[in-house]
Amino acid sequence: MKLWDKGLPTDQKIDMFTVGNDRQLDLVIAKYDIKATLAHAKMLHTIDLLSEDDISKIETELNNLAKEIEEGTFIIENQFEDVHSKIEFELTKRIGDAGKKIHTARSRNDQVLVAMHLYLKDELTQIKSQVKELSRNLLITAEQYKDILLPGYTHLQIAMPSSFGLWFSSYAESFVDDLYFVNAALKVVDQNPLGSAAGYGSSFPIDREFTTKELGFETLKYNVVAAQMSRGKSEKSTAFAMSSVAGTLSKLAMDVCLYMSQNFDFMSIPSEFTTGSSIMPHKKNPDVFELIRGKCNKIQALPYELTLLINNLPSGYHRDLQLLKEGVVPAIQDLKASLEMAIYALQSVTVNKHILEDNKYDYLFSVDTLNTLVMKGMSFRDAYVKIGMDIENSNYKPEKHTKHSHIGSINNLCLDKIREKLDNI
Amino acid sequence: MKLWDKGLPTDQKIDMFTVGNDRQLDLVIAKYDIKATLAHAKMLHTIDLLSEDDISKIETELNNLAKEIEEGTFIIENQFEDVHSKIEFELTKRIGDAGKKIHTARSRNDQVLVAMHLYLKDELTQIKSQVKELSRNLLITAEQYKDILLPGYTHLQIAMPSSFGLWFSSYAESFVDDLYFVNAALKVVDQNPLGSAAGYGSSFPIDREFTTKELGFETLKYNVVAAQMSRGKSEKSTAFAMSSVAGTLSKLAMDVCLYMSQNFDFMSIPSEFTTGSSIMPHKKNPDVFELIRGKCNKIQALPYELTLLINNLPSGYHRDLQLLKEGVVPAIQDLKASLEMAIYALQSVTVNKHILEDNKYDYLFSVDTLNTLVMKGMSFRDAYVKIGMDIENSNYKPEKHTKHSHIGSINNLCLDKIREKLDNI
Amino acid sequence: MKLWDKGLPTDQKIDMFTVGNDRQLDLVIAKYDIKATLAHAKMLHTIDLLSEDDISKIETELNNLAKEIEEGTFIIENQFEDVHSKIEFELTKRIGDAGKKIHTARSRNDQVLVAMHLYLKDELTQIKSQVKELSRNLLITAEQYKDILLPGYTHLQIAMPSSFGLWFSSYAESFVDDLYFVNAALKVVDQNPLGSAAGYGSSFPIDREFTTKELGFETLKYNVVAAQMSRGKSEKSTAFAMSSVAGTLSKLAMDVCLYMSQNFDFMSIPSEFTTGSSIMPHKKNPDVFELIRGKCNKIQALPYELTLLINNLPSGYHRDLQLLKEGVVPAIQDLKASLEMAIYALQSVTVNKHILEDNKYDYLFSVDTLNTLVMKGMSFRDAYVKIGMDIENSNYKPEKHTKHSHIGSINNLCLDKIREKLDNI
Amino acid sequence: MKLWDKGLPTDQKIDMFTVGNDRQLDLVIAKYDIKATLAHAKMLHTIDLLSEDDISKIETELNNLAKEIEEGTFIIENQFEDVHSKIEFELTKRIGDAGKKIHTARSRNDQVLVAMHLYLKDELTQIKSQVKELSRNLLITAEQYKDILLPGYTHLQIAMPSSFGLWFSSYAESFVDDLYFVNAALKVVDQNPLGSAAGYGSSFPIDREFTTKELGFETLKYNVVAAQMSRGKSEKSTAFAMSSVAGTLSKLAMDVCLYMSQNFDFMSIPSEFTTGSSIMPHKKNPDVFELIRGKCNKIQALPYELTLLINNLPSGYHRDLQLLKEGVVPAIQDLKASLEMAIYALQSVTVNKHILEDNKYDYLFSVDTLNTLVMKGMSFRDAYVKIGMDIENSNYKPEKHTKHSHIGSINNLCLDKIREKLDNI
Repeated sequence: MKLWDKGLPTDQKIDMFTVGNDRQLDLVIAKYDIKATLAHAKMLHTIDLLSEDDISKIETELNNLAKEIEEGTFIIENQFEDVHSKIEFELTKRIGDAGKKIHTARSRNDQVLVAMHLYLKDELTQIKSQVKELSRNLLITAEQYKDILLPGYTHLQIAMPSSFGLWFSSYAESFVDDLYFVNAALKVVDQNPLGSAAGYGSSFPIDREFTTKELGFETLKYNVVAAQMSRGKSEKSTAFAMSSVAGTLSKLAMDVCLYMSQNFDFMSIPSEFTTGSSIMPHKKNPDVFELIRGKCNKIQALPYELTLLINNLPSGYHRDLQLLKEGVVPAIQDLKASLEMAIYALQSVTVNKHILEDNKYDYLFSVDTLNTLVMKGMSFRDAYVKIGMDIENSNYKPEKHTKHSHIGSINNLCLDKIREKLDNI
Repeated sequence: MKLWDKGLPTDQKIDMFTVGNDRQLDLVIAKYDIKATLAHAKMLHTIDLLSEDDISKIETELNNLAKEIEEGTFIIENQFEDVHSKIEFELTKRIGDAGKKIHTARSRNDQVLVAMHLYLKDELTQIKSQVKELSRNLLITAEQYKDILLPGYTHLQIAMPSSFGLWFSSYAESFVDDLYFVNAALKVVDQNPLGSAAGYGSSFPIDREFTTKELGFETLKYNVVAAQMSRGKSEKSTAFAMSSVAGTLSKLAMDVCLYMSQNFDFMSIPSEFTTGSSIMPHKKNPDVFELIRGKCNKIQALPYELTLLINNLPSGYHRDLQLLKEGVVPAIQDLKASLEMAIYALQSVTVNKHILEDNKYDYLFSVDTLNTLVMKGMSFRDAYVKIGMDIENSNYKPEKHTKHSHIGSINNLCLDKIREKLDNI
Repeated sequence: MKLWDKGLPTDQKIDMFTVGNDRQLDLVIAKYDIKATLAHAKMLHTIDLLSEDDISKIETELNNLAKEIEEGTFIIENQFEDVHSKIEFELTKRIGDAGKKIHTARSRNDQVLVAMHLYLKDELTQIKSQVKELSRNLLITAEQYKDILLPGYTHLQIAMPSSFGLWFSSYAESFVDDLYFVNAALKVVDQNPLGSAAGYGSSFPIDREFTTKELGFETLKYNVVAAQMSRGKSEKSTAFAMSSVAGTLSKLAMDVCLYMSQNFDFMSIPSEFTTGSSIMPHKKNPDVFELIRGKCNKIQALPYELTLLINNLPSGYHRDLQLLKEGVVPAIQDLKASLEMAIYALQSVTVNKHILEDNKYDYLFSVDTLNTLVMKGMSFRDAYVKIGMDIENSNYKPEKHTKHSHIGSINNLCLDKIREKLDNI
Repeated sequence: MKLWDKGLPTDQKIDMFTVGNDRQLDLVIAKYDIKATLAHAKMLHTIDLLSEDDISKIETELNNLAKEIEEGTFIIENQFEDVHSKIEFELTKRIGDAGKKIHTARSRNDQVLVAMHLYLKDELTQIKSQVKELSRNLLITAEQYKDILLPGYTHLQIAMPSSFGLWFSSYAESFVDDLYFVNAALKVVDQNPLGSAAGYGSSFPIDREFTTKELGFETLKYNVVAAQMSRGKSEKSTAFAMSSVAGTLSKLAMDVCLYMSQNFDFMSIPSEFTTGSSIMPHKKNPDVFELIRGKCNKIQALPYELTLLINNLPSGYHRDLQLLKEGVVPAIQDLKASLEMAIYALQSVTVNKHILEDNKYDYLFSVDTLNTLVMKGMSFRDAYVKIGMDIENSNYKPEKHTKHSHIGSINNLCLDKIREKLDNI
């Protein structure tokens, strides 16, 4: 974070104000800018705006720069306002005038746009794959503990029998819904905006289908004004998708934190994911899950931040759009890290197999008992009265097993069906 | 809106507090509850929990109630806390005990869930169709005015040539992205939650595949805990989709309001969509578009309201979930109304064909002129200097037409490609 | 709620779209419009724009209308678009031309502004008084149960001794902070905007100090453009204040819901505030507190809705501002109702006096034991080792009382100091 | 920003996940932790838990550390998880055991709390002073240009005469409202939380009044649970205040960006605050104001982020609270930088003195002309008809000056009254 410094002269302050922490954020974007620049250069060559010699030098040096980025030796010094000017500078330094020519028929605006689209597509793909991994693990754990019963709560009051099988796999199926949104965001960013220049196209006879194919985009954002409008919109779409995933993961983390409280004592996670106190040996602070919850809750504020940035701005570029990255990049990092932590930590969770032995959970089965009487032919009303009286007279003896057999219930988890949903997405 | 009344006794206040304005909102849900109740009853019949006679009476009376709802004669009186208890009451009144039996193997929770899923699916489908209609109209208008040039702005500064063709069709292509989110939300709600009861299933041997087919759902939400979790999540998913559409529509409205200002004077809309003043004959207040913008901006706050309602609640039902409807139902009404208004108003827009005659727009073409020189072989640097000097010496004479020919640019709008995107969604 | 109707002709739809549910919301504003209209009329009389006869008739009929509003017989029929046109119509019908003259030197814009300011000032004052009442009750309950110990949690893990005295009074002191924001909002709305007309003042020699005094405002919003800008800002300021109160109340409700779970069993509330089940006699669903939590969480989304409505709009009136009321009025009703419910329900709460007898809470006191050793001169390190070993060897015997004596701790609650803060605000 | 690295071993990842970018953020907090630690140490001395010798060494070294922080040589290395452990380490390294003793009777929780309160108090005070400076400058500029007329807009349509005097000073008076919220936030943070330890106090006989006085807090947060609850609440209160200021500043920036468009051409700002293009000499991109707008809009999302972090968490510490800083610290930096930029840039603004010469603004005065006729005795209806016809027949000749004389109108700006409001806050 670039912190504002009181003692600076005004022009340096203006510079800091307008550049912000772009240089740091741009390191994340650098490799996508290289990729897009190369595609653009190749296209310029096909329409004779770059010579054979130019394109050959450009390709070599862009590949060198790509290697430096991957090795971590690429640095954006303070004299450059962003990664794009740094790369242009390096090219020109290394290969002369050909380096300057790559800016023909594009502008900073569509350069940022295409790099961001590539970046977001890559990250969304990774997030999708992590969510699938986490969900599949949850299904495995659900299978493993399918016979261990849990109290089910409504209003946070003990209500009906549930099970670890149900609980683990419920999150797997719930993540499927989030993946629909990840897919939607992928559709939004998988459209080539390159060629839109400052948002109104140009008079150069560029070949946008060439760059689309070269960059592996599924299609083009045809209309150049629409392409420009996707600045902000592609970030917001990504934020909606991340927010959807984060909402589910945050809820899972909330459950874990609650279930690890001594007042529930349902499960525990490996000690490396907790903090404790030797003087309070019972204490297993679920720090990692609290941070997963917190980070995922922060992520859910991101769409609002992005909306405020772009809302009520007329069409066309505004400098405000530069600030989009500040929220998106760390949120992506946080979500990926949170998913990774959840994948690790849930792999070796320990569940309490004796929860229901505590007699505060006895009434869990009263509705099942009632249903059994109804199924045997007693009217609902009579069955209700009988069990109510049994309970009042302390004659109620729960049978602590369940006969739930319908699709999706305790004894019929349909894990294969949920796995199928995951596979098909 | 139910307004809180100071003078009431406490128990009535508690009643008002817990019921809220559910009765009014539930009128919107009523027909979906009827549909789901009928499917549930038929299923109970197939597993012998309802007799032939029962199901026949139930079907007849549910159909009668459906008719009353459609005719607007169905009313939820104050003694009923919601539409579900009202319908159960009516059934029991009309056909006796069979009416009570329909509550076997379901609970209020999954009754609300299934009705809401059906409702949201229906509304999202309508919204999708309206967005397509609006987008297709925009393409038609783009075709109609494709030759009329507009100034294109960056930083709200006059920058590059644009056109009405570009501007109208940019929104059509931009709405395509929103439809990916509408589709995602449709996937989320198009899953049958019925049978999850209070969120943990039941011991009845219900046939959830039967009701899934009967209600036309694409699939089931298998896991009953996941089904319960979709309460809140289905509303939030819908809100994300609506928010996406609303963001684009709001931006369109902002452009219209700006372009109708006398300082731009680019276009006007039919007078029935404006308010004016006979004493200020130039005044055409674009009220309808200001309200479209305002309503769409409000809608964009909905996901945050819903997130706040459900966030950090552990899994399982909580009464808080009852409040989800309060935000969702009016937002759906507002979005549909806004889309309808936009469809109407944009059908007969008038555009100013002489915008670029004003010489403040002369510099629009300077970049094109420069590019032409570059294309003819002059170096960028020399061309830049030449034009800069021409401008300084007032020798710059813009040719007020454009040679933009690449895909998606002024003279190559690719309207068919955008229409294809719309058709394929 | 006005629901959008498919079959209507376009002009009626436009009417519905532009009027919305203003008529219903405006019933809440009506009496403040009467009050402001009377003050304006009196002022017009002082500058000779209304005759003695005019003002006398106007005053009489405005008072009559005020009575009708109070009695609930005042209705805004569909031919009027809002309360302001209805009142003007009634006046003119009853007293002729004098009724029309009251619109001299004001516009709809400042009429709405002044009525909203009066309304918000009134409601904020009531909310302030309710928060004080609730806080004072919490202090009384804290005093009553000051000796009953509770486990204190960190990370939702059992950590340190706490008490009902601490817990109840903590919310009282926390509400004090919210009242600073209520006071700030009161300062914002307690400024007379009347006279700003459409936002640019007028050429009439109106006496704005007269109306300021007449309406009981503390000061004027002098600058007419600033007065216009307070439309949106006064609502947002109110929303910030409500959001602050709602955040604290929601947290209190969360604690209550958790503490009423059988897994905690710390407290219970009167049965009229819960729902239950005779078949599950242990179940006490804390519906009222869940709804308090839910409503307060919704209210916390209000500032964002209002921000989205007004953000990035240039200065000057826009029709979007009409939509501000839709969110503010129900939120005020909800907050007042939630506060009233909390006041009722917390008056007769029952606390569990035997919580700490459960040995899962034994380690609560280990830190205190350690501190005692340190105070007696043992080094922290040695004390830590000794107690750790005692616990490991099951030799640890907690003394289940506390010696916390410093300001604000269990045995020194400083309730008078907190009461003093409340009194001084 | 700490970016997540794929190749790390799990335990390092957990470390990165739990520490985040705390070290960087904590540099901002460091000096406040020093201050609070010293006050705490002095208090421990007064209750004989630190010797004369201990406190003397501690004071010396804390002062040394304070100097290192000020000089920028203080660094938090990777082996420390935050500034608090670093400072403790340094103390112990430099003065031995006495360094460890400072942690007696406090915990990390109240250490963070008190440092954040001091930090927020300091920053809010600076923000308040900047807002006052900006507002006073706006009043000076208003005075300077009070005679230059501007068109006033409603619905973005040309409506009524306004002036630069009105426009500049309207923002000054509007900022006054924001300062009420800054004051409210100051009240919230100006309460000493030190001594609350982990949120439940301790058994040490600490003297909280001593530290309160020593640290210059106006009062204590008495109740230790309330003190803990102020974690999150103090940040949210600050965010509300900042959000209020940011809303006004963002609107001002929006006006500037619009007014600098060639379609308005009302004003310009010094060129160092803009970017341009020599080939489009008319272009003056108002980058600094676009970034002020963007940053201020981002800031307005902060309260929502913080609310999501803390909402629905039961009372007591949760690790989620660690994430509060991540949003607050950069937002404070951004707001202060935005205010500073606005102060600079608005000092030397140039206004267009000939705006109203353009005849598209002629109708601005039609309402004034009408009012003049009414004041001379013509009925409103007749005057309205006459002017309407004059306009229709092109007989309308506006007198391009205004006679607005009432309080707060063009010719009676009451700048002294607004300055008085600023002084009194």
